[in-house]
Amino acid sequence: MTQPPFAFQVESCPPGQKARTGLFTTPHGVVQTPAFMPVGTRASIKGVMPREVAEAGASMILANTLHLALRPGPEVVRKLGGLHRMMDWQGPILTDSGGYQVFSMADVNRIREDGVTFRSVVDGSAMHLTPERAIEIQCDLGADVIMAFDQCPADPLKRDDVAVATERTHRWLDRCVTRWQELGGLDRGQALFGIVQGGCFEDLRRASVAAVTSHDLVGYALGGISVGEGRAAIRDAFAFATPLLPVNKPRYLMGIGTPVDFFDAVAEGADLFDCVTPTRHGRNHQGFTSRGRVNLRNLAWALETGPLDPECPCPACTRYPAGALRHLCTVGEMLGGTLLSIHNLYFFHSLMARIRAAVAAGRLAELRAEVLPRVEQRFKPGAAEAE
Amino acid sequence: MTQPPFAFQVESCPPGQKARTGLFTTPHGVVQTPAFMPVGTRASIKGVMPREVAEAGASMILANTLHLALRPGPEVVRKLGGLHRMMDWQGPILTDSGGYQVFSMADVNRIREDGVTFRSVVDGSAMHLTPERAIEIQCDLGADVIMAFDQCPADPLKRDDVAVATERTHRWLDRCVTRWQELGGLDRGQALFGIVQGGCFEDLRRASVAAVTSHDLVGYALGGISVGEGRAAIRDAFAFATPLLPVNKPRYLMGIGTPVDFFDAVAEGADLFDCVTPTRHGRNHQGFTSRGRVNLRNLAWALETGPLDPECPCPACTRYPAGALRHLCTVGEMLGGTLLSIHNLYFFHSLMARIRAAVAAGRLAELRAEVLPRVEQRFKPGAAEAE
Repeated sequence: MTQPPFAFQVESCPPGQKARTGLFTTPHGVVQTPAFMPVGTRASIKGVMPREVAEAGASMILANTLHLALRPGPEVVRKLGGLHRMMDWQGPILTDSGGYQVFSMADVNRIREDGVTFRSVVDGSAMHLTPERAIEIQCDLGADVIMAFDQCPADPLKRDDVAVATERTHRWLDRCVTRWQELGGLDRGQALFGIVQGGCFEDLRRASVAAVTSHDLVGYALGGISVGEGRAAIRDAFAFATPLLPVNKPRYLMGIGTPVDFFDAVAEGADLFDCVTPTRHGRNHQGFTSRGRVNLRNLAWALETGPLDPECPCPACTRYPAGALRHLCTVGEMLGGTLLSIHNLYFFHSLMARIRAAVAAGRLAELRAEVLPRVEQRFKPGAAEAE
Repeated sequence: MTQPPFAFQVESCPPGQKARTGLFTTPHGVVQTPAFMPVGTRASIKGVMPREVAEAGASMILANTLHLALRPGPEVVRKLGGLHRMMDWQGPILTDSGGYQVFSMADVNRIREDGVTFRSVVDGSAMHLTPERAIEIQCDLGADVIMAFDQCPADPLKRDDVAVATERTHRWLDRCVTRWQELGGLDRGQALFGIVQGGCFEDLRRASVAAVTSHDLVGYALGGISVGEGRAAIRDAFAFATPLLPVNKPRYLMGIGTPVDFFDAVAEGADLFDCVTPTRHGRNHQGFTSRGRVNLRNLAWALETGPLDPECPCPACTRYPAGALRHLCTVGEMLGGTLLSIHNLYFFHSLMARIRAAVAAGRLAELRAEVLPRVEQRFKPGAAEAE
């Protein structure tokens, strides 16, 4: 069913490896995978102009259905021309279904077979979200890729809860597919991805993969893997489930992550990732750099005339002494968080580009060994200086 | 004493008019006057990347000495390479002397002949600023144009207070000139401007012009004209004093202003202006447009698919439906304030470019009649819609 305007082509998959590079074609352009998608929760990558996002190397971005359903509302987005026009983003966009947000940020009142009733975080009013409604909203938003409405179990280690949520997710997927097809399906230029649940249980994950891939969709996601169950459990869950997904479809690991996550997940054959990490860390003046993680508010940066990251081509690193960035952060100038967010986006996209090249060359493990020990350590300049 | 690298050349001054256009040459480039300088109080035009500031049409920008003296401190700025490097700004920069800020925002404890003692707004510690120290700090900051340290009377209508402050300003100017010359004077590549005080009293303004222009400086400013004494009094003060300033030197009206101020002041022969208006209004979601002043949070904009200002070439107007901008402002996304700030900067600089062309063509009054009634009115789309 992957048909124009959508296509996915594995470009390279060295023998004996699960890692692969690919090209994911959408109505708004081609995405080189593995790819990281910056998150524009409320129709804006926080603090960063779209051209900076594109220059950082992003090709596909994400927006959050639940936030946009609350404000400005799906009808408003549609009337304003859809998300691409609202966000001034010419490339592909993906919207989540609201499922994760409903379970993670809202006061969930009732989960029933029909759907979820919860309180709006904006005004406290009662909201009701069903699989059908989640699809309708996403059709109004107009992203290239829309996600099925799933139930994300609160604790992926509680087997009974996970089993109930996973089976409900499968029934909800049936309803999502039906509603999406009623609204035009692929002819809308919007591809529906199914979401595999199953928590940290191999048999439930396996059953979920079977149920979800029984629908011939453009792509599939692994959900429920970034809800706080700890690194080891996350790793086990996606290490096990990723290779079960069809080889000829893009595999999206929702809510991942950080450099170590990318290496872990790409090695298992994952293709798409999203996380608020680069911009949230940026706003909080935390930088990812080739020399390690940085807290730019640290006094050690105050007189640094060199760049934040000597290996980075971003405007923050090439146009400012790191001490100037620190000053902007310290006094609370918006531009400090903006520049750090831009830097982190460059870092994430540049890392992903190196990962793609390494996968194609069969050198992913070598790149990991070369990069990870440095980037995941803490770094500050002139370690002899006082904090 | 205006000598390379500084020069000021009146380009056009139609017969019978005081308005003129000019070219102000600095070590970091030439400024076409009349010119508006955006304010980068703490070494950042709030929320706007430098390239957006430049693309908006700004050629010269301003930074505030007192704020930078408090954080990160003049030595830090100097060690980081000076303001141009810290702000990633290749064009000319002007720093105020801190005088206005000391009197307007700090708890002033003691004003003595030596200088001013006040409490730091950052940590409450006691600070002492003298004319000499204000010059030394500005030499560290490294702007192209630095300002004399003046005493700004709290109420420009209280004659006795104004007289005392004005005479002290003259004595402080003598000390500023001496210290500036000791530190290298023009050979530093930094020009000192004197500041005329005198409140709303013609004789005091006249005496102040005489005293300040007894120093042959690169340029002169009128101070104490935006401290809340009301439009009529401001207008009278600068209408009277501007033409008294030397014809062959740039005339800087400090802290001005808004479109009507520009028309008023340019007509009297003023050349340089600065104000936080475009960015402060932008952050508060207030826009200046060709159709009038706009509150973008107004519900009337919610479904507007057209641009905020159909006559504006800025990214906010050419790349976003106005309803999308309103959404960003309403939900509190930083990008809303950033885009509105950029728009307002385009508006101010484009207005100033039209004013320059009108002055050169002897059509300033006509442009004023054409532009002001529209831009100073309130505007919202579809007036029939409910607020």
